[in-house]
Amino acid sequence: MTQDRRIRLGLILHGVGRTWDDWRHPARNVRASTDFGLYRRQAQLAEQGKFDFLFVADSLSVNEKSSPHYLNRFEPLTILSALAAVTDHIGLVGTLSVSYTEPFNVARQFASLDHISGGRAGWNVVTSWLSDTAANFGKTSHPAHNERYRIAAEHLDVVQGLWDSWEDDALVGDKDTGVFVDPAKLHRLDHTGQYFRVRGPLNIGRSSQGQPVIFQAGASEDGRDFAARHAEAVFCAPQTIEEARLYYADLRERARRLQREAGLPLILPGIAPITGLTEEEAEASYQELAALTSLDTGLGFLSRSFNDHDFRQYDLDGPFPEVEHIGNESNQSSSRRILQRVQDGNLTIRQIALELATPRGDFTGTPAQVADALQNWFETGAADGFVIFEPLPGQLELFVKHVVPILQERGLFHSDYEHNTFRENLDVPFPVNRYTNAAAQTG
Amino acid sequence: MTQDRRIRLGLILHGVGRTWDDWRHPARNVRASTDFGLYRRQAQLAEQGKFDFLFVADSLSVNEKSSPHYLNRFEPLTILSALAAVTDHIGLVGTLSVSYTEPFNVARQFASLDHISGGRAGWNVVTSWLSDTAANFGKTSHPAHNERYRIAAEHLDVVQGLWDSWEDDALVGDKDTGVFVDPAKLHRLDHTGQYFRVRGPLNIGRSSQGQPVIFQAGASEDGRDFAARHAEAVFCAPQTIEEARLYYADLRERARRLQREAGLPLILPGIAPITGLTEEEAEASYQELAALTSLDTGLGFLSRSFNDHDFRQYDLDGPFPEVEHIGNESNQSSSRRILQRVQDGNLTIRQIALELATPRGDFTGTPAQVADALQNWFETGAADGFVIFEPLPGQLELFVKHVVPILQERGLFHSDYEHNTFRENLDVPFPVNRYTNAAAQTG
Repeated sequence: MTQDRRIRLGLILHGVGRTWDDWRHPARNVRASTDFGLYRRQAQLAEQGKFDFLFVADSLSVNEKSSPHYLNRFEPLTILSALAAVTDHIGLVGTLSVSYTEPFNVARQFASLDHISGGRAGWNVVTSWLSDTAANFGKTSHPAHNERYRIAAEHLDVVQGLWDSWEDDALVGDKDTGVFVDPAKLHRLDHTGQYFRVRGPLNIGRSSQGQPVIFQAGASEDGRDFAARHAEAVFCAPQTIEEARLYYADLRERARRLQREAGLPLILPGIAPITGLTEEEAEASYQELAALTSLDTGLGFLSRSFNDHDFRQYDLDGPFPEVEHIGNESNQSSSRRILQRVQDGNLTIRQIALELATPRGDFTGTPAQVADALQNWFETGAADGFVIFEPLPGQLELFVKHVVPILQERGLFHSDYEHNTFRENLDVPFPVNRYTNAAAQTG
Repeated sequence: MTQDRRIRLGLILHGVGRTWDDWRHPARNVRASTDFGLYRRQAQLAEQGKFDFLFVADSLSVNEKSSPHYLNRFEPLTILSALAAVTDHIGLVGTLSVSYTEPFNVARQFASLDHISGGRAGWNVVTSWLSDTAANFGKTSHPAHNERYRIAAEHLDVVQGLWDSWEDDALVGDKDTGVFVDPAKLHRLDHTGQYFRVRGPLNIGRSSQGQPVIFQAGASEDGRDFAARHAEAVFCAPQTIEEARLYYADLRERARRLQREAGLPLILPGIAPITGLTEEEAEASYQELAALTSLDTGLGFLSRSFNDHDFRQYDLDGPFPEVEHIGNESNQSSSRRILQRVQDGNLTIRQIALELATPRGDFTGTPAQVADALQNWFETGAADGFVIFEPLPGQLELFVKHVVPILQERGLFHSDYEHNTFRENLDVPFPVNRYTNAAAQTG
């Protein structure tokens, strides 16, 4: 841990809400998920708070039972491009699945966002985990979990290869001689792999940050290996600081074995801080949030982690049933986590259901208490920073106005953006163009 | 022709230039194609001139010999989303190929742009005409020309079906009852066709204009049929007013036979007006442009229209050789047009090459002369409006400041945007949601 190490902060933009029920808050606009004005205000408020980045999640399949924030939402690349035009410094991280996209299109769109924003793009690489998704893309079956990560690795490799198509000085633009591009510095990729065959070159050059920053959210074994090998920042969802520390240590150890640079990947738990100017105000806000949550929603969470198992067949206040055998490959990590929590807390079905729907977490309190909790996670091996969800309208503003200044006073957070690009501000290494590098090494 | 009929104007944004050589103009920024600041200024200037829309072209394959404006460029959906955030009224038309995209992704991205912009999106539907493109998308061969249009028709059908997933009142958002969406008004598409199988529903609702406006640029037989059947506006590239009238009459007749609504599709030739405050200034600007054009570029145009045939093997100042047999399916229309022009003008190889590289056209002159030419095309069955290219830096500003006011004075062009959405401003019909319609008819 160097003296310069500081907390990184991202804001997740989730429109109408982040849970099944929080859209019912009186102050929420039910059309928030497609309200550009709201997205712009949140983005500009986060930039005022010197947040490192905005983060847009995604999914590719819905039905009438889907959660409101899944049902109706902006597509990540388009909304981030729009936000690029109304912000100046903040990073722009978009989720895009490798499962149903062409690497050439993905490489172009992120490179384009990277140029529009002056070097502020990031790609959160995901494999699509809902088997229903296949039906929206003409596939009869969804690839198995481990195969999805092999596809992901090759897809990412192709995209990063395409991003290097142009060496940084390939565009000559000599008006006298008429030489626009130096053909020796424009490279075909000529990739032929197990899943993709892509020639290149890409029809857009590199931005000032070289390549977009790679995010990932690996939780499973395959996902952690993928993150340890490829990600520059990892978004994770630990329920407790203990869980966060275990994840952090595990991921860093995997990265060390792969000889990644020290400090990579950055590990950024997602949290939903509830700040009040007094403890009472914070508690009142928590209760306001919890009051929106129905038992149905909690049981829904539980059910989805166990293959749509019906938990209403049991006594909700009796002991938790034997359901270890019900989880399947795609929800393995969440079902395990739930069973562990039930065991640790000796919880009933009702208790775990409500807790799943409205976790209280470590980050409810006064600005100083929230800052203490962030500092504690940051300094005790649980996090390099955080991705902030806004659990209730107004919470982002409270965080920016009251928590951020405390972190800054304590020297835990930057007081301003120091560089032009996302990569530099986040302090992850500049990727030297692979072709330039090769020439320098042999030249 | 009704009294209300008025010229529609679009601006094509092409960054570094529109030809092989115009990037060499002293005032051009050689990095213009990825310069967001320039795109923003042009977009805002066009909006100041009350242009109906911005248009972004596209291509999916380049090599070191490609034209500068192909080599390095923004991806259309991302740049248009960014421009949506810095404009208020102007339509935003993006080119996207049906050949290497998933309908679900296309539907989402355009719907998202449509919401970001408050109902200002348009999709220029293209099939990718460079056979090299296949190599960037893992395909061993490029589908034949007529098959590409069958794919296009099915792709568009699926996208438009997905756009109707949500009836306009499907999002209920009743906070008291907890009903977010009316499940009876959220529709699966369940499309199973020859090329695509897509379930739906789309995870974003309709914008205030219902669906993005459909543009197309059909020139071949198959392309014209496609445009007549599906397009609401057509971008075309006639070289002369006679050619424009023939195209206009042909396309309208095809549309009439298909029982399209009168006046659809709008037919919008692409033109590159050169305006000067005096005739001498206009001529000087034309000469400035022509001086940038090398014989090589003209011969390159010629060669590409005839299967890369080498015309340097002939006497450049002698009679035009017998090359009718050399054109192939994909460049049929351009090779035919060239041969016709050579015959009409009794041109040598050198003459046709230079003319291809820097066509003078009808739109070079004083503001009044340019306005006269626009009016003549508009009133004599050659055009419903125009897509404007800026052939030299500064020309857009001259057009906006000096030509637009003349058109407005003559009652040929609107003096301001009258509606909120692109579709309404363009005066093309609102597409009633197919499900709402069915219910109304049977209910």
